Amino acid sequence: MTAADLASRVLAGEHRAAARLITLIESGDPAAGPLLAELFPHTGRAMVVGVTGPPGAGKSTLAEKLVLSWRQQDRTVAVLAVDPSSPFTGGALLGDRIRLASLSSDPGVYVRSMASRAHLGGLAEAAPAAVRVLDAMGADVVVVETVGVGQSEVAIAGTADCTVLVTMPGGGDGVQAMKAGILEIGDVFVVNKADRDGALRTQRELNAMLRMTERTPRPAVLLTQADAGEGVDNLVKHIDEFLAAARESGQLATRRLAHLEREALELIGVQARRHTLQALDPAAMAGFSQALRERRIDPATVATRALALADFRS
Amino acid sequence: MTAADLASRVLAGEHRAAARLITLIESGDPAAGPLLAELFPHTGRAMVVGVTGPPGAGKSTLAEKLVLSWRQQDRTVAVLAVDPSSPFTGGALLGDRIRLASLSSDPGVYVRSMASRAHLGGLAEAAPAAVRVLDAMGADVVVVETVGVGQSEVAIAGTADCTVLVTMPGGGDGVQAMKAGILEIGDVFVVNKADRDGALRTQRELNAMLRMTERTPRPAVLLTQADAGEGVDNLVKHIDEFLAAARESGQLATRRLAHLEREALELIGVQARRHTLQALDPAAMAGFSQALRERRIDPATVATRALALADFRS
Repeated sequence: MTAADLASRVLAGEHRAAARLITLIESGDPAAGPLLAELFPHTGRAMVVGVTGPPGAGKSTLAEKLVLSWRQQDRTVAVLAVDPSSPFTGGALLGDRIRLASLSSDPGVYVRSMASRAHLGGLAEAAPAAVRVLDAMGADVVVVETVGVGQSEVAIAGTADCTVLVTMPGGGDGVQAMKAGILEIGDVFVVNKADRDGALRTQRELNAMLRMTERTPRPAVLLTQADAGEGVDNLVKHIDEFLAAARESGQLATRRLAHLEREALELIGVQARRHTLQALDPAAMAGFSQALRERRIDPATVATRALALADFRS
Repeated sequence: MTAADLASRVLAGEHRAAARLITLIESGDPAAGPLLAELFPHTGRAMVVGVTGPPGAGKSTLAEKLVLSWRQQDRTVAVLAVDPSSPFTGGALLGDRIRLASLSSDPGVYVRSMASRAHLGGLAEAAPAAVRVLDAMGADVVVVETVGVGQSEVAIAGTADCTVLVTMPGGGDGVQAMKAGILEIGDVFVVNKADRDGALRTQRELNAMLRMTERTPRPAVLLTQADAGEGVDNLVKHIDEFLAAARESGQLATRRLAHLEREALELIGVQARRHTLQALDPAAMAGFSQALRERRIDPATVATRALALADFRS
């Protein structure tokens, strides 16, 4: 399998080709660039569903049951499990990955996890490209599951066509977790582990908070019990209805364009860093380093001068 | 107070001038640039201490007690409390901020919190500049406290001269939280809430993990009980000893240079985005937008073309 025919093999639906291309993206390999450009016109067909929420809410179990539900409708599914390797949560998630991987004995399911690597430009830049690979591969549904709790994880899930925000019942914590900007990115809200005490109260509180945001239409707040599979088909129905309405109103097209524009803007920064590092000669680099060490020129001025030296007109 | 004399007033030690300049940095105001450049040669005098760790470990209480301990030694202290407004933890921290703010009736203490704003370039870029303002203002010690749990929060704390990693006792969780790369950024480890069961075991486990990293000298793992003030003076002593040794060995200078170089590299990306947005004419922008909408040109190619159109040689 050469890099050159990877794009056509992805378009033919080959999981292995998609896996290989996502590895190139993940490692920041420049060979991914032309392949992604080639695939781009063939994307936009899949329904992209983000699943996010605080740790312990049961996101992975819910994602697994969602996949089974879509499979019963004979829709093919690809799952991108994004793990920004948060240093404080990093270790605990292997079990989840393995559980999702067990789905992949079904040829209609493809599961891929993606972790942060030490290259210029992080997961926030790499994840949308990986989603498009899975879209081009022919998945009817692409699930982007983020495991973290930070802003970047939510941002990644928020690039989806429909974002499912999962929380659980419990003394205000579940609702507390939904505060601070996160209400805006959820399209469908889920109180999972609904057999536990306080589920209805959490649902009520979320509904009250959503009323205050004056969003129209107001997102639904559903109850699920993912481990028993309860409420999952209803969630699938709501996701479909949300997307049908968003397509109808033009909001889906608007949102997708906004995501692509933001991605291009981020990539300007990533490419500028990479190009500048390649373009600057060692003497210039050493000079900047010396000036920083002696505290003669501050980092912002060094950045401005480095950009002026690197020539982007190619 | 005009922008022009802010730098000299910061150098004169005026808290209000520092506050105003940090607000300019936070909001991405270009007026901050020349002021920061002017201050840069006057920085590098303060000892910068990062305090980070998982939620609930008692970071804010410990930071407060550290400040009191330094004040008893007649050292001036500035605290920068960095809150990346993680959507899942954002709401819970107001109490901590207020507690720290109560210290600021002492003129030898200055407390400032910094939150993420919607401008190009995030907290990771703004925090080091704010630290230098506090350094130039004449603080003997600058504490950078991060409240979050994600990679960016740890990265911010990790730009300090000495990073204190705070955890607490508890069934493996405290140690678990220290995994995945975080062992490398801690210079001094603290098991806080040491009156709780399992404190000694957590200390032993951390020591065992640190032995495996083969770091020399091996970081200390200290026990504290911050709410009672126990172990805090000992922690201050260890921080001083760590920094004296790092200064002696040249590791402090090496680390500071590495931080400045990385900051300059990040700022290349931030400035490239800002400049490109300003330089491109509306017709070019509309053309890119149209191409993205019709899925003719992918985001990476748009970024490359935009960079080529923007002229950085000024």
